[in-house]
Amino acid sequence: MRIEDLIKEPGEWLRGTGPEGDIVISSRIRLARNVQGFPFLTRADAKERARVEAFIRGKLEGNRTVPKLHYFPLAELSAVDRLVLVERHLISREHATSEQNAGVAIAKDECVSVMVNEEDHLRIQVIRSGFLAAETWDQASQVDDAIGKKVPFSFHPEFGFLTACPTNVGTGMRISVLLHLPALVLTKQIEKVFHALGRITFTVRGLYGEGTQASGDFYQISNQVTLGKAEQDLVQDMRNVVPEIVRFERTWRKRLMDENRRKLEDRIWRAWAVLRHARWITSEETLEYLSFVRLGVHLGVLQGVELGTVNELFVFSQPGHLQKTMNRALEAGDRDAARADWIRKRLGAE
Amino acid sequence: MRIEDLIKEPGEWLRGTGPEGDIVISSRIRLARNVQGFPFLTRADAKERARVEAFIRGKLEGNRTVPKLHYFPLAELSAVDRLVLVERHLISREHATSEQNAGVAIAKDECVSVMVNEEDHLRIQVIRSGFLAAETWDQASQVDDAIGKKVPFSFHPEFGFLTACPTNVGTGMRISVLLHLPALVLTKQIEKVFHALGRITFTVRGLYGEGTQASGDFYQISNQVTLGKAEQDLVQDMRNVVPEIVRFERTWRKRLMDENRRKLEDRIWRAWAVLRHARWITSEETLEYLSFVRLGVHLGVLQGVELGTVNELFVFSQPGHLQKTMNRALEAGDRDAARADWIRKRLGAE
Repeated sequence: MRIEDLIKEPGEWLRGTGPEGDIVISSRIRLARNVQGFPFLTRADAKERARVEAFIRGKLEGNRTVPKLHYFPLAELSAVDRLVLVERHLISREHATSEQNAGVAIAKDECVSVMVNEEDHLRIQVIRSGFLAAETWDQASQVDDAIGKKVPFSFHPEFGFLTACPTNVGTGMRISVLLHLPALVLTKQIEKVFHALGRITFTVRGLYGEGTQASGDFYQISNQVTLGKAEQDLVQDMRNVVPEIVRFERTWRKRLMDENRRKLEDRIWRAWAVLRHARWITSEETLEYLSFVRLGVHLGVLQGVELGTVNELFVFSQPGHLQKTMNRALEAGDRDAARADWIRKRLGAE
Repeated sequence: MRIEDLIKEPGEWLRGTGPEGDIVISSRIRLARNVQGFPFLTRADAKERARVEAFIRGKLEGNRTVPKLHYFPLAELSAVDRLVLVERHLISREHATSEQNAGVAIAKDECVSVMVNEEDHLRIQVIRSGFLAAETWDQASQVDDAIGKKVPFSFHPEFGFLTACPTNVGTGMRISVLLHLPALVLTKQIEKVFHALGRITFTVRGLYGEGTQASGDFYQISNQVTLGKAEQDLVQDMRNVVPEIVRFERTWRKRLMDENRRKLEDRIWRAWAVLRHARWITSEETLEYLSFVRLGVHLGVLQGVELGTVNELFVFSQPGHLQKTMNRALEAGDRDAARADWIRKRLGAE
């Protein structure tokens, strides 16, 4: 398996085929784990980091009880390759800047991945297309058990899993759901959602995690309180909250279609038209238009448009994927031209 | 001949087939004339206006030495019909508001027309596609002579033709050329042109004459000093000035293509795309995009696009033509939707 393979076809979560796929892009669980007998990374020197990495890599590569994982040492990857992994939600932005003794193990369908030596020794991730909180948890739990059989996790009978940052102590779990909420944004209802979520300790982020702005009407909501709550409770919280937001978004989509159909259709068709004809387009503009196109496909305004292609484009039009696809480094300006050319080609347009 | 016929096909000047047609839309001459023995309209009552109209109408309709003219009394035309005539440059905006004893005589190809009882008793107009100052003058002169044989014009041996407004006394002539100058607008060179023109007593106006803003990068330049200058001098002035502007616009089009081709192509393709896909579009936005499309056709960026269709659209997307084509009155909002539908249909798009 090579980074090039990631470019050939999108991972499972990008297909948009899961439940509530018109609004929920993906469900994701990550578990923070550390290995007994090794210092936390905050206190480890290069040699100790190297020992941790070698130990975990060995246990992951030989493990036959989890999906086969391919290990990528980050030091062997170019800046563009790492960017591809970030855009694919396989490593964090922070992890991409790690120079030594860090890596990521990835299953072929990308549903399972493990960052090694990010903030913790291990960050196990399961990501699935659509709204699958319970299933994602089941799978994450299986992977956690399987890895835990080979790797002795730091665990305290009273506090639970021990982590480098105290906010993760306990289950070490974060559950996130990536939502596409164009109608709530258009009708300015989105602030209400944030307000309500804030009250129940959920956090809202952009498409690419912490500190990034929501773009193209995508919002990632997560529950990060891990201490004092069981995994099942965190999953249940998400199962209570997400259907509410989904219902709210659907209500406003319908209202827009009932009350302002012509203008909504106009926005959708223009977005589609520009993507198929532009010769110069930024990444932000692309996300904005793709968001309208995605909405248009789900509302039946754009017919005969492959939803899979649209979903793919969100990630494949990002700088890393674009450069990897073009097989060359591109300055920002050239990137905007190359992006426009590539999108047109991908959409079979002029 | 009926107003409906105007909607069936565009007049000669709209075809964009004349010399320097990439930049010069049309050349136009109008002659202000009054009839001996009748008071100027500024001093005429309704009865006198009616007598003037009847007199001129008789002379125009029976005249076999000019192209056959069809007379339309304005009182018999709906508000939409008059708007069509304004958009077609066959009557002025002011004339469109005349309620009684006013009319316009129009030749089938629209090259010759005569407004009756606008500011003067007669306003003879010849309009041709492209840059044809001399030819337009020759034709205007012939029409003037032919009408003058039947209608005794008010003429003073020292001052020349007498007119209602002193600014027109002398030749009573105005020569105007309608130019498409998108490159000079994009590169902000247009102010230089205006400045130079102002110094030599030319005036610059928008697409629809006095008091209107230039839209879609169209500018109408005219020479209105009529006293103390012979007709031939006015024509010659235009023949000196226009080729300079044309050269200037061409230089900047080339520079844009040499130095900023990708971004220029992007603007052109997006304009083309939006016109072919919008579901809601204002008249101003339409002009703006058509301007880029027209430029794109002339630069060879858009191939296989019929220039005649693009030129037609400039006028046919205006409110009067649109309502006449749809055969119903439309409120502004409905008009924007109808316009979008009609443009897509006309461009053979989705």
